[in-house]
Amino acid sequence: MRQRNKPWAHEMMEQYPQYMVLKPEEQKGKWHALFGNNNPIHIEVGTGKGQFITGMAMKNPQINYIAIEVSKNVLVNALEKVIQNEISNIKLMLVDAENLPNIFTEGEVALVYLNFSDPWPKTRHEKRRLTYKSFLDLYKSILPKNGEIHFKTDNRGLFEFSLVSFNQYGMDFKFVSLDLHNSDYEGNIMTEYEAKFSAKGNPIYRCEVAFK
Amino acid sequence: MRQRNKPWAHEMMEQYPQYMVLKPEEQKGKWHALFGNNNPIHIEVGTGKGQFITGMAMKNPQINYIAIEVSKNVLVNALEKVIQNEISNIKLMLVDAENLPNIFTEGEVALVYLNFSDPWPKTRHEKRRLTYKSFLDLYKSILPKNGEIHFKTDNRGLFEFSLVSFNQYGMDFKFVSLDLHNSDYEGNIMTEYEAKFSAKGNPIYRCEVAFK
Repeated sequence: MRQRNKPWAHEMMEQYPQYMVLKPEEQKGKWHALFGNNNPIHIEVGTGKGQFITGMAMKNPQINYIAIEVSKNVLVNALEKVIQNEISNIKLMLVDAENLPNIFTEGEVALVYLNFSDPWPKTRHEKRRLTYKSFLDLYKSILPKNGEIHFKTDNRGLFEFSLVSFNQYGMDFKFVSLDLHNSDYEGNIMTEYEAKFSAKGNPIYRCEVAFK
Repeated sequence: MRQRNKPWAHEMMEQYPQYMVLKPEEQKGKWHALFGNNNPIHIEVGTGKGQFITGMAMKNPQINYIAIEVSKNVLVNALEKVIQNEISNIKLMLVDAENLPNIFTEGEVALVYLNFSDPWPKTRHEKRRLTYKSFLDLYKSILPKNGEIHFKTDNRGLFEFSLVSFNQYGMDFKFVSLDLHNSDYEGNIMTEYEAKFSAKGNPIYRCEVAFK
């Protein structure tokens, strides 16, 4: 979805260095020191407006969260939520997912969340989907052995593609739900998109998969 | 679903030995001879009333089909369709899926279809689901290397379970649809159940998976 351009976004981000990591490459291998503890670090690739990750961070103070987003115009919404709620176990960064291996060492990230990623529905754009094998390479390079991706989407085509992609990559399926809101799964934190799309009656798909 | 008991079913089956294979164990390793050609043999485990397999057999005369069903009360419906349409590339048998290795040699079957299998929704019954690992062992033992299972169902819980089961067995996902009737897939032959359930607006799930 197109977001209104916010030319003041960069300036705002620079005013909150306690939340915004402006030069994330410089923290590679030092993230636990930056958080000031050894709690596990969970990242969300494609944070959008941040409802999911801020909800998770407030619910789970014993986990450190890092929000990764390529659009400044939505990331400022996430930053506003962090400021407003004074959430100390969250950092945000404005970078492309392709930079992940320059930002984290292997095993430095304990878990990767992908929520309502851009479906890139045209076949010629499949390499841009965040569950394409080249992105799985990136996640694998920063996760520990048996590290997991937790993925949800309302987009049927993207979920079909992703199940095949995870399987063909040799990943291990831990959990699959084809209608999350009508399942036994507890503790779901909704994203902005999720609340809107599920209200239309569309099923939300979710899976947990592990690298081998 | 409970079917009316048909005490005459066995007698009727015995009257059509050209279609009904009454002692299938005796054909082990000889199925191509029985069909009188070397066309590939596709089996459907849990044929029910036979709409799918009779439709497939009429559409694909270059393939031999074997309908496997444990309930005589529904298999007679399939037999009636075969008689009525004089379908020569189909055989039927009244046996339990657990007998498959006694009936076929390795590689004698080219493809296994599972359609709208009993979901056995209670966790304590999961071993009875036709996509449970012990059944996958059976199918693997009669298929060639890289042999495939083509599976469809309207039951969400069974499909979720089956995706995890196929993946954890190490099978290769070739195709996944989470709404078959609203997808690009062409040439779908509907089962009786499928026509009924999809008319209610329920999605039909389908996948093609291969053994490694």
